[in-house]
Amino acid sequence: MAQENKKQVEQITDMEVDFAQWYTDVCKKAELIDYSSVKGLFILRPYGYAIWENVQKELDSKFKATGHENVYLPLLIPESLLEKEKNHVEGFAPECAWVTFGGSEPLEERLCIRPTSETLFCEHYANIIHSWRDLPKLYNQWCSVLRWEKTSRPFLRHREFLWQEGHTMHATAEEAIEETERMLEIYADFCENTLAMPVVKGKKTDKEKFSGAEATYTVECMMHDKKALQGGTSHYFGDGFARAFDITFTGKDNRQQYPHQTSWGVSTRLIGGIIMTHGDNNGLILPPRIAPIQIMVIPVAQHKPGVLDAAAAVVSRLSAAGFRVKSDTSDQSPGWKFAEYEMKGVPLRLELGPKDIENHQCVLVRRDNGEKVFASLDQLEETVSKLLDSAHHALYSKAKRTLEDNTYPCSTLEEVRETMSARGGFAKAMWCGDLACEQRMKDEAGVSSRCIPFAQENLGDTCAICGKPAHHMVYWGVAY
Amino acid sequence: MAQENKKQVEQITDMEVDFAQWYTDVCKKAELIDYSSVKGLFILRPYGYAIWENVQKELDSKFKATGHENVYLPLLIPESLLEKEKNHVEGFAPECAWVTFGGSEPLEERLCIRPTSETLFCEHYANIIHSWRDLPKLYNQWCSVLRWEKTSRPFLRHREFLWQEGHTMHATAEEAIEETERMLEIYADFCENTLAMPVVKGKKTDKEKFSGAEATYTVECMMHDKKALQGGTSHYFGDGFARAFDITFTGKDNRQQYPHQTSWGVSTRLIGGIIMTHGDNNGLILPPRIAPIQIMVIPVAQHKPGVLDAAAAVVSRLSAAGFRVKSDTSDQSPGWKFAEYEMKGVPLRLELGPKDIENHQCVLVRRDNGEKVFASLDQLEETVSKLLDSAHHALYSKAKRTLEDNTYPCSTLEEVRETMSARGGFAKAMWCGDLACEQRMKDEAGVSSRCIPFAQENLGDTCAICGKPAHHMVYWGVAY
Repeated sequence: MAQENKKQVEQITDMEVDFAQWYTDVCKKAELIDYSSVKGLFILRPYGYAIWENVQKELDSKFKATGHENVYLPLLIPESLLEKEKNHVEGFAPECAWVTFGGSEPLEERLCIRPTSETLFCEHYANIIHSWRDLPKLYNQWCSVLRWEKTSRPFLRHREFLWQEGHTMHATAEEAIEETERMLEIYADFCENTLAMPVVKGKKTDKEKFSGAEATYTVECMMHDKKALQGGTSHYFGDGFARAFDITFTGKDNRQQYPHQTSWGVSTRLIGGIIMTHGDNNGLILPPRIAPIQIMVIPVAQHKPGVLDAAAAVVSRLSAAGFRVKSDTSDQSPGWKFAEYEMKGVPLRLELGPKDIENHQCVLVRRDNGEKVFASLDQLEETVSKLLDSAHHALYSKAKRTLEDNTYPCSTLEEVRETMSARGGFAKAMWCGDLACEQRMKDEAGVSSRCIPFAQENLGDTCAICGKPAHHMVYWGVAY
Repeated sequence: MAQENKKQVEQITDMEVDFAQWYTDVCKKAELIDYSSVKGLFILRPYGYAIWENVQKELDSKFKATGHENVYLPLLIPESLLEKEKNHVEGFAPECAWVTFGGSEPLEERLCIRPTSETLFCEHYANIIHSWRDLPKLYNQWCSVLRWEKTSRPFLRHREFLWQEGHTMHATAEEAIEETERMLEIYADFCENTLAMPVVKGKKTDKEKFSGAEATYTVECMMHDKKALQGGTSHYFGDGFARAFDITFTGKDNRQQYPHQTSWGVSTRLIGGIIMTHGDNNGLILPPRIAPIQIMVIPVAQHKPGVLDAAAAVVSRLSAAGFRVKSDTSDQSPGWKFAEYEMKGVPLRLELGPKDIENHQCVLVRRDNGEKVFASLDQLEETVSKLLDSAHHALYSKAKRTLEDNTYPCSTLEEVRETMSARGGFAKAMWCGDLACEQRMKDEAGVSSRCIPFAQENLGDTCAICGKPAHHMVYWGVAY
């Protein structure tokens, strides 16, 4: 990096010095986010929101391809409706923001801003589900939700955040469970193949599952600082909500019965995950498949004749080939621009100056590893496509190595405690299934159960905490 | 329509009998909307939401093509922030829903759910605009807003509704005014060429303009019942908000100055407009360019060998050609299906039975005029494309005729009163520009000013109300 441009980047704290500060610096400096005057309510700036738009576009097409339809349900939930399912209300009521006035009039019943919409979907489903012909209902909603939490951090913990929430109803438990698994697979595939974030797929323990769910499935990712981030969750509710909301249907056998329910969601937290999985001390590194700008074209000596025209021609060629490409023709120096888009994590920089034009070539520089190639303009589309693909795979492999290198099989609580406090990361350890042991792991080793992975390994026959017979191998860690 | 299927449609009240009931019946029966347990909060069902998704897709690409970027700002506005611009708060505070509790704690300052976001954008702009290099800022936001109104009606008046709100900042008044006009043109073009809704473009009077704006521009449409519906509005704010929020920038001349601002929006009201512009007594009629399903394929005698395969083949051909196409292979009768998709306003029905397959043809029936053609499967894509285009133009022409046939030049207040009470529609009449006259028109003729159209005509030299010199020709009418 040119000396004169060090200043831009100096404002980003090194992650080894202070990881939390590095993270906040990147969010602010890369113009992903801004603060509002209300604590916990953030502004998604164009560059940050564009990442979310790409998340939406990609996931929405996967949802539609699997038969889901989008709907929009109200922002506000009457208190009495929220209270219909006991476990659910206990989980969410303490975090609700309450509307008590409409204009100058106090409301007869206070309304909470949705923290999640199970209760609203159930009220609607009770109206529209009557017969087996009405099933399955495969609905999804893109919206914002609000949870009045004490602490806040960009993307990771907003009082208001954007997400999608799928809510489905099925004739049988089997179908509903299948749906829960299908959606978890979609999340896992999306994390790995679009965001280049390797995941551990598994089931949450009862302690960690969603309020009101029978089972919660999760994809867990590991960040640079070795902490866990839950990438997405998928819940199976059985017929608990259906009973509480009196949703019944007449089966093919003419019998009245309760449908079985799921919900599943991912949120803007994923953007926090991208930053903390791939970023470095020069700023953001965006995986090419989600980057709002995949290629930034930077003209060199742009005052010389032909340079801006050649840059514009390259932009329209790459854009026509389906790439997300821009050029910066402002009067800042090329060095300033190099540093700027490095900091903003654009996967590929394309430099084009008079000499390059003469030689019918350009310079391509990968953000993830700094690799620099001189490329002929003849096969430009092909070269760019290969470099972006290589960048995706390199980012994935690097993150996968981080995950594997920092996952430690442990056979006792003591070993978990020592390993975690010395190195962080995930501990794999056997567990008897008792809440008491899970609680001891939390209290004594400082880690929570991340999931019971689908890919079980037998690390021993006894629980690492109490020594009784083990039933599950569990991933443990410190989570965001 | 087959006799046996009359029942489906009998549940829709004739519009000549009760227009309001016809409208509500269509919204419910076509499954566009459902009610929630809170008055004024509606549920957009998949078919209704899919129309909104098409509105979003189309407009969003027009916004991006004109340099706008999407952002997301918070849902909640502190009371003190809302109060910063005097006229604005007076317009909106009476309709705000107020959050007073976060969890179990009362808030120090109450927060309103955004009724519109000018104040939030201004707070953000004050943070990020410093130099002429930071301008223009061309931002847009897709979100829901809340206005606690007394009455409610599907799509036309929701307490919570979905919309987009553009908010832009410019270095000069000229640039800002140009932007206001550019966005109004985009709305007019969208209404006419996508929704087949002819518009009258013009400026609002001071009485009817947006709270806090210097000028409001509008596109006004006429519904079946001759009432006006505001399709979209675009506001020029001058530097009023900038002064109130202390947003300044250093110009190229090194002078500190205030930027000039616009905002513009359309909402789910447009869906109400589509229904009331095109629908008939058999239900919805959707313009092809916005219809979620453009072609519904209905197999006839589907139990016979080859029919379902042929239907599936047609669906994949049309889908590959870029049409939005579905087939209904449920066990309902073809007659039931014909009536169902007629009611749901699908622009084109494609019938395909054993005899058609034998003759290598299908039957195509237009929803808008009932025209039925036998089409060879060879040129199917071309035929479908032509029919959909014809349907669009026919719908537009019909609506244009309605608008023209029901717009009456009037030279006195008395003539406006008589014409409006006898026939409804729009009155065109000259106006001196005084609020008092506008108010008299409202009180005595029961109509409000819809707009001062850009296309001015000179209908006389004196104000139709007071007889003093006239300055404008105004459209008057009853509005939704």
